[in-house]
Amino acid sequence: MKDKGILIVLSGPSGVGKGTVRKAVFSRPDAKFEYSISMTTRKPREGEVDGVDYFFKTREEFEDLIKKGKLLEYAEYVGNYYGTPVDYVKETLESGKDVFLEIEVQGAKQVREKFPEGLFIFLMPPSLEELKNRITGRGTESVELIHDRMEAARKEIELTSMYDYIVVNDDVERAVDKIYAIVQAEHCRSERVIDQYIKMLEVE
Amino acid sequence: MKDKGILIVLSGPSGVGKGTVRKAVFSRPDAKFEYSISMTTRKPREGEVDGVDYFFKTREEFEDLIKKGKLLEYAEYVGNYYGTPVDYVKETLESGKDVFLEIEVQGAKQVREKFPEGLFIFLMPPSLEELKNRITGRGTESVELIHDRMEAARKEIELTSMYDYIVVNDDVERAVDKIYAIVQAEHCRSERVIDQYIKMLEVE
Repeated sequence: MKDKGILIVLSGPSGVGKGTVRKAVFSRPDAKFEYSISMTTRKPREGEVDGVDYFFKTREEFEDLIKKGKLLEYAEYVGNYYGTPVDYVKETLESGKDVFLEIEVQGAKQVREKFPEGLFIFLMPPSLEELKNRITGRGTESVELIHDRMEAARKEIELTSMYDYIVVNDDVERAVDKIYAIVQAEHCRSERVIDQYIKMLEVE
Repeated sequence: MKDKGILIVLSGPSGVGKGTVRKAVFSRPDAKFEYSISMTTRKPREGEVDGVDYFFKTREEFEDLIKKGKLLEYAEYVGNYYGTPVDYVKETLESGKDVFLEIEVQGAKQVREKFPEGLFIFLMPPSLEELKNRITGRGTESVELIHDRMEAARKEIELTSMYDYIVVNDDVERAVDKIYAIVQAEHCRSERVIDQYIKMLEVE
C-alpha cells in the first residue's frame, strides 16, 4: 500500500544559505527525495546545464506556461522569472516520492495556498537568535533605532508563522540533520498515516 | 533564556512493546529527556524493580494520592491502577527538560486534556495478529485476560486520531530512531519556537 509523497519546501530570507543547505541535503547518501528543478528566464551562467541546474526558457515560453497554469509558483526577481513546473511535482508526489523545493519566500507563500498539506521549513539566520543582545546589549543605540529594529524583527517573526518548522542555520550539517529529522517525523504524523492503519484494521 | 521542556507521551495498546521501546529510548547515550516513572497497584513481574520500572503501591495508597490530586493521570486497567505522579512532571518541564511518559491509552487521554501542547506518540503493532502473538507469547496470562486485552487493543487503535504521531513497532531500533527524529523535529516546530522569539522581543 503506497502513500502519497510529501512536498518539502525549504525557504527563508535571501542570503540565509538555502542553496548551500539544499546541496548538503542532497549530498547525503540516504537522500530519498526528489529535487524539483526550477525554471528561469535568466541566461545560464558558466558551467550551468539546462535540465540540471535550471530549465532555461525564453520570456515568451515562461509567460505561456504561466497562462496555461503550468507553474506551481513563480516570481520575477531582478528582471528575470523564476518558477516551479507543477507537473513534475504532482507526478512525483503521486508516485509516492517526496519532492524537495528550495524557493524564495514569495514563492513559498504561493505553494502554501496550493499545497496546504506541504511541509514548510523556514531557514532562519543565526543572527536573529542574537537579536536581543544586538539590540539591547550594546547600550549605545537610540530608543528610536531599537524600536525600528524590534519592528523589523517582529515582521520577520510574523512571516515564520506560515511555516511548520523553523531551522536555525548556525551550522550547515546541524541544519541538515534537523531537516532529515523533520522529514522522518512528518512521515509518522497521524494525519498522514492514519488512513493506512484504518485500511489495515479493516483487513483483520 | 530557558524554554519549558516538552512533555513526550508514548502510549499504545497493551502488549505492543511500550516498555521495551521506552528502555531502548533511554539506553541511547544521547537520551536527553527525563523518564517519569509510573505508579501501579499491579504485582511486579519477574525482574521488575520498585522505583525503576514502576512505583508499586497498594490500592489504599493509590486511592489516597487520587484524592489529594497528586496524579497527572490514572486509570484502572484489568483490575489494577496505573498513574503518573504530577509534581515531578511539572517541575522537570519548568526546568527546561523534556519529560518522557510511557503510559496506557486511557491515561494518555487525560494527559492530552491537561497538557494539549504535549507530544503524543502512538506505538502501533505491525498487525493485530502480531499483537495477539505478543500478548499470548508472554505466557503468563490467562485466556480470559488475553481476550480482554485484544478487545481493549482494538478499541485503543481507534483512538489514534488523538495522537500527533504514529510509530509502528515492527523493529525496536527503528521505532526508537523515529521517536528521536520526532522529538528533534518538535523542537523546531514553529509554534514552539515562535514563543521563544516573542518572549525574547518582549524584553525591551
